[in-house]
Amino acid sequence: MTQENAQALNKVLVAGEWRDANAEGSFQAFNPTSGEKLADAYPVSSWQDCDAALTAAVEAFVSMQSLSREVIADFIEKYAARIEANSQVLVDMANLETGLAKTPRLADVEIPRTVSQLRQAATAAREASWTTPTIDSQSNIRSMLQAIGPVAVFGPNNFPFAFGSISGGDFAAAIAAGNPVIAKAHPSHPGTTRIFAEQAKLAADEAGLPAAAIQLIYAMSNESGLKLVSDSRIAATGFTGSRPAGLALKKAAEEAGKLIYLELSSVNPVVVLEGAINDRAAAIAEEFAGSCTMAAGQLCTKPGLLIVPTGEAGDALVSDIAARFNSGPVGSLLSPQSAEHIAATASELVSNGATMLTEQTSEDSARFCHANTLMSVSASSFISNSETFQREMFGNASLIVRAESTTQTVELIGLFEGNLTGCIYSSESGSDDKDYDLIEPALRQKVGRMINDKMPTGVAVSAAMNHGGPFPSSGHPGFTAVGMPCAVKRFAALKCFDAVRPHRLPEVLADKNPDGNIWRQIDGQWTQADVAK
Amino acid sequence: MTQENAQALNKVLVAGEWRDANAEGSFQAFNPTSGEKLADAYPVSSWQDCDAALTAAVEAFVSMQSLSREVIADFIEKYAARIEANSQVLVDMANLETGLAKTPRLADVEIPRTVSQLRQAATAAREASWTTPTIDSQSNIRSMLQAIGPVAVFGPNNFPFAFGSISGGDFAAAIAAGNPVIAKAHPSHPGTTRIFAEQAKLAADEAGLPAAAIQLIYAMSNESGLKLVSDSRIAATGFTGSRPAGLALKKAAEEAGKLIYLELSSVNPVVVLEGAINDRAAAIAEEFAGSCTMAAGQLCTKPGLLIVPTGEAGDALVSDIAARFNSGPVGSLLSPQSAEHIAATASELVSNGATMLTEQTSEDSARFCHANTLMSVSASSFISNSETFQREMFGNASLIVRAESTTQTVELIGLFEGNLTGCIYSSESGSDDKDYDLIEPALRQKVGRMINDKMPTGVAVSAAMNHGGPFPSSGHPGFTAVGMPCAVKRFAALKCFDAVRPHRLPEVLADKNPDGNIWRQIDGQWTQADVAK
Repeated sequence: MTQENAQALNKVLVAGEWRDANAEGSFQAFNPTSGEKLADAYPVSSWQDCDAALTAAVEAFVSMQSLSREVIADFIEKYAARIEANSQVLVDMANLETGLAKTPRLADVEIPRTVSQLRQAATAAREASWTTPTIDSQSNIRSMLQAIGPVAVFGPNNFPFAFGSISGGDFAAAIAAGNPVIAKAHPSHPGTTRIFAEQAKLAADEAGLPAAAIQLIYAMSNESGLKLVSDSRIAATGFTGSRPAGLALKKAAEEAGKLIYLELSSVNPVVVLEGAINDRAAAIAEEFAGSCTMAAGQLCTKPGLLIVPTGEAGDALVSDIAARFNSGPVGSLLSPQSAEHIAATASELVSNGATMLTEQTSEDSARFCHANTLMSVSASSFISNSETFQREMFGNASLIVRAESTTQTVELIGLFEGNLTGCIYSSESGSDDKDYDLIEPALRQKVGRMINDKMPTGVAVSAAMNHGGPFPSSGHPGFTAVGMPCAVKRFAALKCFDAVRPHRLPEVLADKNPDGNIWRQIDGQWTQADVAK
Repeated sequence: MTQENAQALNKVLVAGEWRDANAEGSFQAFNPTSGEKLADAYPVSSWQDCDAALTAAVEAFVSMQSLSREVIADFIEKYAARIEANSQVLVDMANLETGLAKTPRLADVEIPRTVSQLRQAATAAREASWTTPTIDSQSNIRSMLQAIGPVAVFGPNNFPFAFGSISGGDFAAAIAAGNPVIAKAHPSHPGTTRIFAEQAKLAADEAGLPAAAIQLIYAMSNESGLKLVSDSRIAATGFTGSRPAGLALKKAAEEAGKLIYLELSSVNPVVVLEGAINDRAAAIAEEFAGSCTMAAGQLCTKPGLLIVPTGEAGDALVSDIAARFNSGPVGSLLSPQSAEHIAATASELVSNGATMLTEQTSEDSARFCHANTLMSVSASSFISNSETFQREMFGNASLIVRAESTTQTVELIGLFEGNLTGCIYSSESGSDDKDYDLIEPALRQKVGRMINDKMPTGVAVSAAMNHGGPFPSSGHPGFTAVGMPCAVKRFAALKCFDAVRPHRLPEVLADKNPDGNIWRQIDGQWTQADVAK
């Protein structure tokens, strides 16, 4: 790159300072609603930037191990307050870069969710029960979860705030556990990520975090990405994004013995039983169509697969849904490739026997978009070609599968890959309960969250949430990416203290419960009490 | 193979019955104390046996999902009682196959440990608190850990009972979680494993487990092993054994998106500080030499690396240890390759600058053994060639590193791979505390269990134990392989129930605590109470 270009690029946040990237390229984001490239240019960092960030993160980690929990909690809360104070500029930038509506989506849903999630993470950091202190007083063996080391976070394109690489759930969880974070921005919203990083850096300095506790790189080559997640200095990675990219990172990380938590793809099957259709077909059609087309369907938990019984009632439900797809608003897609990807997948499904149920009109517009797309296929076709028919279409496109019997439904569920969610709609009268009992055990094996009578698109930030599931919906089915304090545990290592002298124990493992609030398991009992003398 | 040979082979336990293997070869175990092959022949199963076991395990899993917790606990307890009743035959066979002493080791240590571990697993299965039920009563979101599916267990050679593929910790944990187990015997003790499997099968039938809840295959090709751990029907694998085999299985499993928990290698560094030597040099020498030569050092937590300060006091300690190595009993090694492996590694260390401190006499005997082996090397040599010098020698061989300063000790610890344990001996007077505070944070990052003032070879089966650590000591630093109920959680998946109707919830997530004993986290509080109305 020429010096002139380099000077025009945004700076990266590495080793505690905003500095010129060692760039091997540059990129600009798009305005999806116009299809135009935005003016700001961002660097594609060379390995040199990654290397510097890794070294600085290791140093930061050493300092963070002796920080009080309060400092980390204080940072997260100061940062949350700064996000609230800067919400208008964040909303404006994210709207420009993603086309997502300013209201209600960005300002009224995603900002509050992001801030609340950070505050829950701050509470977890301060309260420390997430460390699950376990004390065997007889043997004087004590264990707890502790920070694991530098964590890399790759955020997705679809939630610029709540899943953002330096503002979302993985970031909040990793820092709450006491780890430095190297955030890698999603190239679809670098400006939004920059504003977050600026506020995070100010909050970190105010709270007294070490200089490199939070770092930001906008982009890097695929090769550098693979090196980053497998580097000896990294402890773990959180990745939310496309399946091919995620699988490549997973392979590199795991071959090096490194942890990587992934959220890759999910079609979130919804099964509608006969009685539910008879009870409330119109409501189901409305919920499904709304859930598929909201945010142009670009949600991890969009219901991409609806199983509807064959027969007249099912036919009517399908027609109603198709009509709603045709008449509903067509949202903007996040990237220039999205529409093409939906069209190509839909075309492959049709060529394999699916029926297109919606009008595939194309707008006379440069914005990124694709007609709301609904297809249907028989369960027998699905069963004979299940890999093709369960391919995720990330956007406003879904597939309806028409099942002839409960037995056939169970058979096709047996062919599913792992999913984040599975949902069953059934009659309030109990008339579907026999079918439910046959279908639920099969479906539950394939999903992380089993839902009744509502669409999966709402993902509460709750300690009981599971935003995870069997592979490939996530990389480890024992963990959730959403929900505090449970998501924090992903970025921690189990540490045992065996016959360690009392004055050397971590505070939370001492006989005395430091502030009387930490839940600890002492001799098999959960308690907030001290260890009995 | 000829029909005649096939008939002479021991049968495998597949799909609920002891049946002739579909064998592609056969093997015999050795008597390590004589070097002779034992008479009994065991099959190397073809993929056909693995395939049949996988299909049967999937069926068993479906049945096990509706079994009561009591049935599983009852099976484990009946099995434990049968092990006690058959302990003499187990001890005799294990002694024959492993050369480990009948008493105290096999009869007085490992049988009680194995039975106790199983009973703790039964308690975990019955009591169900390991499922960590989490209830958000406001949102009506509830989650818990549930059985994950068929689990393959590969046991190691060194603990034929307590880590055995169908009797040890991984088996106990996987079945307590409600999963069927496909056990793969270690080829060094197939007869011992067969007796366990016979008793397990009888107990399983008495308790009413499904036919294929427990299965046993003695051996398979490497290729079949890779297929097994990555098969779509398997949910997870537990492996304890050699690093090359474990890494190959890890790669295959993870590329298929399958869980695998591994215990691969560990040198278990022990740091002896100046003051401790001044206080109690002879006791430390005795503990270290005993810990290294017990069971011929074939323990996962054998202290393979001792860091001793340079200077006269350290010199004397090292001489004392060397004398104890020379005069101590030389145990039998488990496999015909062990002695060769120790000799080759020791020779490589010496050629890289280590000094041999013990007499390398060889016995005029056919038994599997190697002279107790102690070497020393300077910290600077270690630092310049750390990969070589931290190679595990599985057996009665250890390396002493002479450190010139605490700074140098910290530097060399920074080069360590992940280990199961790390230990620091320090003066009771507090004179070493400053050095301890510098060394401990560095060492803790490299180990799963931090120990004070004792050798790491004791591994209590405690809820607070961590028998795990950073890679390559284990595959995931967040889990332990020893300790109930914590080890059970490895073989489970997080399942969330979102707005699921009350009568469809798993018993442990119902408003009412089923028997008032399950610890559940309700709205952030751990309690045994019901959900408040």
